[in-house]
Amino acid sequence: MSPSKTAEPWRLTASEALSKIQADELSVQDYARSLLERIKARDDQVQAWAHLDEDLVIQQAKALDEVPKKNRGPLHGLPIAVKDVIYTKGKTTTAQFAAVHVGPKTRNPHDPLRTPGGSSTGSGAVVADFQAPLSLGTQTGGSMIRPASFNGIYGLKPTWNSVSREGSKIYSLTFDTLGWFGRCVDDIALLADVFGIQDDKQEEDASVFEGVKGARFAICKTVVWPFAGPGTQEALSKAAALLEAHGAIVEEVDLPSEFDNLPEWHRVVLHCEGGTAFLPEYRVGKDHINQVLVDHVENINGFTRKEHLEAFDGMAALRPKFDEIAGRYAAIITPSVPDEAPALHTPVLNVPGFKGAHDMPIGVSLVAPRYRDRHLLEVGKAVGEIFEAEGGWENKLALDDRLSSTKESISQKPVHDQNR
Amino acid sequence: MSPSKTAEPWRLTASEALSKIQADELSVQDYARSLLERIKARDDQVQAWAHLDEDLVIQQAKALDEVPKKNRGPLHGLPIAVKDVIYTKGKTTTAQFAAVHVGPKTRNPHDPLRTPGGSSTGSGAVVADFQAPLSLGTQTGGSMIRPASFNGIYGLKPTWNSVSREGSKIYSLTFDTLGWFGRCVDDIALLADVFGIQDDKQEEDASVFEGVKGARFAICKTVVWPFAGPGTQEALSKAAALLEAHGAIVEEVDLPSEFDNLPEWHRVVLHCEGGTAFLPEYRVGKDHINQVLVDHVENINGFTRKEHLEAFDGMAALRPKFDEIAGRYAAIITPSVPDEAPALHTPVLNVPGFKGAHDMPIGVSLVAPRYRDRHLLEVGKAVGEIFEAEGGWENKLALDDRLSSTKESISQKPVHDQNR
Repeated sequence: MSPSKTAEPWRLTASEALSKIQADELSVQDYARSLLERIKARDDQVQAWAHLDEDLVIQQAKALDEVPKKNRGPLHGLPIAVKDVIYTKGKTTTAQFAAVHVGPKTRNPHDPLRTPGGSSTGSGAVVADFQAPLSLGTQTGGSMIRPASFNGIYGLKPTWNSVSREGSKIYSLTFDTLGWFGRCVDDIALLADVFGIQDDKQEEDASVFEGVKGARFAICKTVVWPFAGPGTQEALSKAAALLEAHGAIVEEVDLPSEFDNLPEWHRVVLHCEGGTAFLPEYRVGKDHINQVLVDHVENINGFTRKEHLEAFDGMAALRPKFDEIAGRYAAIITPSVPDEAPALHTPVLNVPGFKGAHDMPIGVSLVAPRYRDRHLLEVGKAVGEIFEAEGGWENKLALDDRLSSTKESISQKPVHDQNR
Repeated sequence: MSPSKTAEPWRLTASEALSKIQADELSVQDYARSLLERIKARDDQVQAWAHLDEDLVIQQAKALDEVPKKNRGPLHGLPIAVKDVIYTKGKTTTAQFAAVHVGPKTRNPHDPLRTPGGSSTGSGAVVADFQAPLSLGTQTGGSMIRPASFNGIYGLKPTWNSVSREGSKIYSLTFDTLGWFGRCVDDIALLADVFGIQDDKQEEDASVFEGVKGARFAICKTVVWPFAGPGTQEALSKAAALLEAHGAIVEEVDLPSEFDNLPEWHRVVLHCEGGTAFLPEYRVGKDHINQVLVDHVENINGFTRKEHLEAFDGMAALRPKFDEIAGRYAAIITPSVPDEAPALHTPVLNVPGFKGAHDMPIGVSLVAPRYRDRHLLEVGKAVGEIFEAEGGWENKLALDDRLSSTKESISQKPVHDQNR
């Protein structure tokens, strides 16, 4: 996205706001007040907050302004919105336990008749809508990458277990991953620093990324390709054409047929691990949880332990094979929706820039081998500059001079989508 | 263990106490008071509680006695001691985050100069010492099986992720497992029921256990054999001899050489995942956590991501191979200390009955393929009856007519041992 047009602090990226706070050009309190004003103007329409205590925010902002510079942390003064499956205070909406298909009330900031995607619903919407510069989400299926694509922002699902899940509701130990939303790659890199994300030092024989020109990319349609919408298919074609126009080598890569099992294996392990994760809620209050969760616990699909282990071990065997394939390229480019990546534990970055029907944003995903998250961010930054400039979609939410946008009454319910 | 000698409720197994409560022969309150008396008499010596609110216990016991029978849960009235890495109220001691080598003050109930093993230190000690009928522990390395062996009780580490870890401190997602201590297999089966542990229905071709006579067992010394003490080595020999005397077929099994990597792979993944898990504590208060945890976060071993993934994927590839080998037997018998099982995700049951130097208890471990936990309990019950009757060790803690045991002053510190 382009830098802020006016001086209103809510328009700033996280990196810009941080620089201003560090240079004493912006107080934490003024920044917080500006974001709260933006939220106030837009919350009727977007409805992305499950809990927000404005007084507490101001009180904390004031306290932060009093902290001597030498005692300040690296993200001092940056508000970060937190998905409501993580223990904390100010939170964004999600589906029940980030696990069911019926989403919350939240609407896509670009069109109130559409869903912002789930289950990291509110976390995606608030960043897209300039209500927060950064947010935390989680992904078990496509719960980070989907809302990033639907909202036209960057979303990184880092390598599985490269970030602690402490304090976050468990759905599936094998897939659950904490991730981050931002409006630019540099903002996400701020969080990657604090969460200690590091790649190995580059080995001599591995490919070093030195810009799009001359870099090799692969388009991987995956077995879910037939289920991708026309907008997604066009976005992928356009992405390839743009990269080639900028001097990259773009190939198609077909994964070996053993990868065809992934969607079914993901489903089996998800259901079996969900059964373990939601047994406590089931024991205590079966009537108060969604039927999907009850079905997991009661194993209505009748998955056997043997089937579970075949899926679990089968995915494990594919991971190093996928790393090897992905390691041949700067990144593999795949559709953001639907998204099969969690089974492989790889980092995935949604890059916005394309548009589908009704001018709604569509992103594409960049995928790298496990623990090459920093490499992926570097590639994503270069690629994102091209896609945002030439992909054909423009984020109009901050172009308005007005704080608030349209307030027409909305009777139609947001479209639901798959969560997780 | 033999049934209680006298009428004091603290001597009862969980199954016995539950039957009496269900038959109105024992009130929850009387049971709780009896256990509190036992704790009072023994706590100076064993020191196994990190937190215990006696008034709250009595208050809850009274309330439970008021609950109408139709509203009672399956374990109504059974107190369960909880290791202090799990969010709750009355708790038993552990090492810091169940992760470091220096244990708490707790002493082995069988000898106050010795350690009860860690890191599920207090949870093992209170069950052995009749201060609670059941307890919860966790295992990342040998933290369940070691204290079970040292305390002369049963301890089950079920199949990895067959029980939710929700609310328990994370050390390693790949290894952490919640487990249970009891003084007999039937007591542990009570918890296995409530936690929904189920095997697949037996397939025609798989071995069905129909008692020790005619069953096939394997002794597997594992690569840690040279590090096992003489007591452990003798216990394993005696276990084999006893099973043979009871009509079982006992073979030695050597794992293929690729399994030799397991201890090192376990170490690499533990250190790398520990670095992820303790980063939050490190960021917030590096000076307040043990150096071992700081070392994990700072990766003082310099493990690369490549080494981490080789270990992670290597273990994953061995799991189905080990299942196949273990599936040929009623159980594989291994030393309880040291214990390498977490890398393989299999269920492991410590069975007491043997003794080492100074008459201290020594157990052996039974191991089954993943998700054959109920099978393992069934085998463990039959095997345990033989080992307890003829293994040579006797639990003298409940033989006394006195509530309290010796109170001589203790100046020597308990021996420390490896935790996790």
